[in-house]
Amino acid sequence: MALAGPVARRLDSLTKPQGSLGRLEEIALRYCLARGTAMPEPGPKKIVCMAADHGVAEEGVSAYPQAVTAQMVANMLAGGAAINVLARHTGAELELVDMGVAADLSRMAGLRSCRIRAGSNNIARGPAMSVEEAIRAVETGISIAREAASGGFALLGTGDMGIANTTPSSALFAALLPCRPAEVTGRGTGVDEAGLQRKLATIEKALSVNRPRLGDPLSALAALGGFEIAGIAGLIIGGAAFRLPVVVDGFISSAAALCAIRMNPAVARYIFFSHVSAEAGHRFVMDRIGERPVLDLSMRLGEGTGAAIAMSVIEAALKLYREMATFESAGVSSREGA
Amino acid sequence: MALAGPVARRLDSLTKPQGSLGRLEEIALRYCLARGTAMPEPGPKKIVCMAADHGVAEEGVSAYPQAVTAQMVANMLAGGAAINVLARHTGAELELVDMGVAADLSRMAGLRSCRIRAGSNNIARGPAMSVEEAIRAVETGISIAREAASGGFALLGTGDMGIANTTPSSALFAALLPCRPAEVTGRGTGVDEAGLQRKLATIEKALSVNRPRLGDPLSALAALGGFEIAGIAGLIIGGAAFRLPVVVDGFISSAAALCAIRMNPAVARYIFFSHVSAEAGHRFVMDRIGERPVLDLSMRLGEGTGAAIAMSVIEAALKLYREMATFESAGVSSREGA
Repeated sequence: MALAGPVARRLDSLTKPQGSLGRLEEIALRYCLARGTAMPEPGPKKIVCMAADHGVAEEGVSAYPQAVTAQMVANMLAGGAAINVLARHTGAELELVDMGVAADLSRMAGLRSCRIRAGSNNIARGPAMSVEEAIRAVETGISIAREAASGGFALLGTGDMGIANTTPSSALFAALLPCRPAEVTGRGTGVDEAGLQRKLATIEKALSVNRPRLGDPLSALAALGGFEIAGIAGLIIGGAAFRLPVVVDGFISSAAALCAIRMNPAVARYIFFSHVSAEAGHRFVMDRIGERPVLDLSMRLGEGTGAAIAMSVIEAALKLYREMATFESAGVSSREGA
Repeated sequence: MALAGPVARRLDSLTKPQGSLGRLEEIALRYCLARGTAMPEPGPKKIVCMAADHGVAEEGVSAYPQAVTAQMVANMLAGGAAINVLARHTGAELELVDMGVAADLSRMAGLRSCRIRAGSNNIARGPAMSVEEAIRAVETGISIAREAASGGFALLGTGDMGIANTTPSSALFAALLPCRPAEVTGRGTGVDEAGLQRKLATIEKALSVNRPRLGDPLSALAALGGFEIAGIAGLIIGGAAFRLPVVVDGFISSAAALCAIRMNPAVARYIFFSHVSAEAGHRFVMDRIGERPVLDLSMRLGEGTGAAIAMSVIEAALKLYREMATFESAGVSSREGA
């Protein structure tokens, strides 16, 4: 933390009232500390969107059929999904990763295949995956983060696609915060009241049948998670390991982040939480882990959409830090008597 | 408002759960209504930063000497101020306008001179300017908005520079909301407790000596405002008149916006409030006029910095609205049973 002093002094030397850039100053400081330098170089940005299917979809916890996961992956590959528009807008490269979609996507050009298998198991009946599978998925994320770091990227964003994946995410929040499922369970893509009750009962069942596996964060991730959630946890761990700050998207990515933080609390210093999701429970989670996300736009889409917008704000903060003139260089008077 | 139906139908046809883009969907709708079309064309963005000096600075209401206004204009012309960095980041053209700085800036290349005169009068002793001067300043803003509209710009942002200008802004809020000065007065660039008390007493005095002039919004603007505040009010009125949506920066620009709205409430429909300023009282003002700004980043710098960041979010919302695939075009299944 010897860097905090020089970074704060530079922020105070820039031609603006001290502290007047508010959270942008906090972001610049956090980024410098994560990179381990008082003058971080700019670099390209990458969003990694991981897709997988979830056996728990068969419990009727989503408003959409499971086939939509593969259809949306195709939509992303064709450039028509929200994340494509936002990645272009923010100037980030978008990488799409199949972590285990329940359909054969091998003919889809541009999709990186890191499939564990064709969808995780139904968490209401047992573990989503074995611990070995969870480790493979996490290691996949770490590898992708390592590649991005050695490829010169300066900021990584996370994203997800997977019908039913708010259910495992809520289950993970309940197990790892811990808290009551009702505090961290919302309507996902938009289930009705009966669907919400079914979802809550499913999460209670998942916590109950997997009880013996919830003692440590990795086995909890294997028991309650999903392949894309484990992959995103790996991205976050890898980002921290290679000092490549990670912008965490919304509800699902935050569940992955919580797994990563519970495995090693130090990774929190390398994370920017992008936005407060409109999915019920996300604000509660952020409050519980003591984080205030960059944006609050009532979004609840996933894919990396919140991360994409926040990445632009974070980049703005770094440019201000690097490019603004100082009082001395610009010949601007400082405060009267100061 | 016959447009609201088609815009909402298009938003619901895009490949995302309905409403899942949250405030970005509200922004897209508001923009379409302001432009008067269900498929607005993209276009360049412009930020207009207006500078002026304030006689009330002699009351000791700012932490910085008055000379800083001209010095910061020079810093902006050299590209070193926060607004330069953010305008470049967001891809907006930046226009700097001298509305009445208390220094001879005629040799400064790149500065548009629309000077009313070298600084407004001290509002603690009488009106800041005559009503005729206020009209000239407002008309200047309207002209600049007209030029931007006919020049093909698709989004306008406001910004300000003027030492001591939170004082007239607070006085305008108190007069026009109306409310007690203490509810809308903060520390500006960072005055200490004694400075804040001096500032409050100054605002009370300004409201008292100008009491007869506060009956209508234009004469209140002349009595309590400043040349850049009147110019920004004109930009906002002009934006509304020429259906060019205006992104209102922070505290000072909001005071200008309130003047514009009080002159004609319809202009509110053409405004996006960019951010909740950290300047005490701004959140109170937004609540009182029923607006929820796009961002909340604890910024309090002015210059158009909040507008610049919000313009990027608004542009993102428009791109999503225009460029995303529909369920039909992408072959994605819609909700089960829906």
